Amino acid sequence: MEENSFLELAKKAKAASKKIAILPTELKNKALLNIAENLLKNQDKIFEANKKDLDEALPLVEKCELSKSVFNRLKLDENKMRDMIQGIVDISNLEDPVGKTLLKHQLDDGLVLTKISCPIGVLGIIFEARPDVISQISALAIKSSNAVILKGGKESVNTNKAIMAAIQEALDMTEGFPKDVLTQVFSRDDVKNMLSMDKYIDLIIPRGGNSLVKFIKENTKIPVLGHADGICHIFVDKSADLDKAIRVVIDAKTQYPSACNAVETLLIHKDFEGTTELLKALENAGIELVSAPESWHKEYSDKILAYKFVTSLEEATEHINEFSSGHTESIITEDEKNAQIFMSAVDSSGVYHNVSTRFADGFRYGFGAEVGISTNKTHARGPVGLEGLTIYKYNIEGDGHIVKDYVEGVKKFNHKDL
Amino acid sequence: MEENSFLELAKKAKAASKKIAILPTELKNKALLNIAENLLKNQDKIFEANKKDLDEALPLVEKCELSKSVFNRLKLDENKMRDMIQGIVDISNLEDPVGKTLLKHQLDDGLVLTKISCPIGVLGIIFEARPDVISQISALAIKSSNAVILKGGKESVNTNKAIMAAIQEALDMTEGFPKDVLTQVFSRDDVKNMLSMDKYIDLIIPRGGNSLVKFIKENTKIPVLGHADGICHIFVDKSADLDKAIRVVIDAKTQYPSACNAVETLLIHKDFEGTTELLKALENAGIELVSAPESWHKEYSDKILAYKFVTSLEEATEHINEFSSGHTESIITEDEKNAQIFMSAVDSSGVYHNVSTRFADGFRYGFGAEVGISTNKTHARGPVGLEGLTIYKYNIEGDGHIVKDYVEGVKKFNHKDL
Repeated sequence: MEENSFLELAKKAKAASKKIAILPTELKNKALLNIAENLLKNQDKIFEANKKDLDEALPLVEKCELSKSVFNRLKLDENKMRDMIQGIVDISNLEDPVGKTLLKHQLDDGLVLTKISCPIGVLGIIFEARPDVISQISALAIKSSNAVILKGGKESVNTNKAIMAAIQEALDMTEGFPKDVLTQVFSRDDVKNMLSMDKYIDLIIPRGGNSLVKFIKENTKIPVLGHADGICHIFVDKSADLDKAIRVVIDAKTQYPSACNAVETLLIHKDFEGTTELLKALENAGIELVSAPESWHKEYSDKILAYKFVTSLEEATEHINEFSSGHTESIITEDEKNAQIFMSAVDSSGVYHNVSTRFADGFRYGFGAEVGISTNKTHARGPVGLEGLTIYKYNIEGDGHIVKDYVEGVKKFNHKDL
Repeated sequence: MEENSFLELAKKAKAASKKIAILPTELKNKALLNIAENLLKNQDKIFEANKKDLDEALPLVEKCELSKSVFNRLKLDENKMRDMIQGIVDISNLEDPVGKTLLKHQLDDGLVLTKISCPIGVLGIIFEARPDVISQISALAIKSSNAVILKGGKESVNTNKAIMAAIQEALDMTEGFPKDVLTQVFSRDDVKNMLSMDKYIDLIIPRGGNSLVKFIKENTKIPVLGHADGICHIFVDKSADLDKAIRVVIDAKTQYPSACNAVETLLIHKDFEGTTELLKALENAGIELVSAPESWHKEYSDKILAYKFVTSLEEATEHINEFSSGHTESIITEDEKNAQIFMSAVDSSGVYHNVSTRFADGFRYGFGAEVGISTNKTHARGPVGLEGLTIYKYNIEGDGHIVKDYVEGVKKFNHKDL
């Protein structure tokens, strides 16, 4: 798309964001249920479009130009479709994150400050070949009253178009639902356009591999919510319980090795007595152990685990704070005091005690839905639910109150929470 | 400073940020009181240094190379010093924003998630010729357990050095307080260095004029907390009370015209019957009225007010959403319903009813201290207190819990808030 056309589209999204910002909860939920219904009604069309994408992708897989795992993520079957639809229904059942009173504070008699949650505005979503992301993000955006511009991977373009057509049709059917809340774009230039339009796009959420996320973070001034690397650590303390250490490390490394919350580095206290049994158990579980990795920054995304001995809890926390990507870390220890020190000293979005790092997930945390996992140090950190798509505004109700009276001492503030 | 030297300094600040992150509240407060005491003890030295800065600045003012208002802000007298010191004592009395439990949620028996507030890390503060900013920001950073790199204006370099010397001496006296929490840099190159080190600096806070803030926002990937323009609006609705309209607009324009929360544009409903009296009253208050401004984006910072007639509430909110800088807006109306529509439809950090826009201020909001006012759409919006210098982390306490059990259905989550 030409830059000017994209600009028009972004302006329309901004205007739509102001309209959806004030939509009643019931109307947003009605729209979500209409989407769920219409996806079901159009699922054959969507499967057909998906087959077209798969047919075009298959030769690329055979020529090794597309990975098998991307191909698998591209594939939409009845199970995935059912989950997609159920996901939208679930989001319709979540509490509305917008319009919540976060603070109510009297400044003076008849002068009341209220802090109210509100949407962020326009979200730019850039995702790779996972067509289920469209419906999920669209639903989260609608529920949180944000407008969205979506750019999907080129491999799933037919599927994406079919899904979006069903979603748009459902929104058109929903009386009172504003136009232009959801927009889809397709070209590489559109990514460039999206990243440059900080005047109209308020937040970028990339969903995809490390290189996509890194590219985006390096090429925009718009805040980016997400994570690139997932370099997670487990520290087996001197007083760790051997069985727990074995269970947790095997789970964190093997249950889903390519997940961002899988462990990459194991730190073992040099005085831990179960080291031999622990390492043997890990090898028996099919884990390749690496004692001198080329880099402690490496994310293996495979059943490979770097390990290192440390002489103290402090050395462990320092190693983690230096090499972690700030995602999730865990200490295995029976020493409650050491656990507390570890959990407060380690500066990551998730810091656990005797728990697998794989628990870092919005659904497991009980958030009901997840936008992604953030390793940012501002706005939202860790698994981000609907709340991460909101900010707040301050309202003041008064009766002709002016600042001059307070500056000159005619009136005095009598601050109190209401 | 050479880029490499700055890098070393930034690394030290990052290391210090991990240490201050776990400092007990009492120790932070002790450090603050020591700073307050030592500033008082060293005030003559500081005044001397300030005199040197003023002596060097005066010829520049005479040659019109430095504005009178910058010169005035540069000047430190006993009143300002007393306020500075009292400000630090006040911050020591505020609640610690770090270590607060924001959520406690059982995922399963013996598996408990806690969301805990924690510091952001390293703050980069860039400010112009206001030496009182150093002590204020240093105190806020210490209270919120963040490390800081400060770069002040060149006009106040002697004053800044003298203040920082007194602060550092106080911190050295405070047993157990980590080194390198506060660092001061001086050169233009250091600004460039600061803005480029997104690996070590987590948040930039600019304190100064529009052009400084704009330059910073355009030249860094680090999140920036602040505001450039302050284009605030007041909408006088059809059913506005004339006296309230006059009071509020005069206050919002004249009480401190160069403040960011002063009003720049007045929108008047075409059917408002008091228009003639309103405009006359504004002129009598010394306000210059402009009916055809060169731009609705202009911030006058003076007793000049652009105005425009609108045909509806909707036209008013649309004008504001298009031209506002997202700072603060107010509606003057006796129609409660219109007030509610305005307050929810206008997308600014502060949206008021029958109140002067000048109330947008952390102290007036009752936050006790203010880092600045943010027009961001993420992280923190409006007047930002200590809370805006924190983020959170998630801790999970378990007993060898692994994800495999839940994926395979051996165990089930029993989410509940605790």
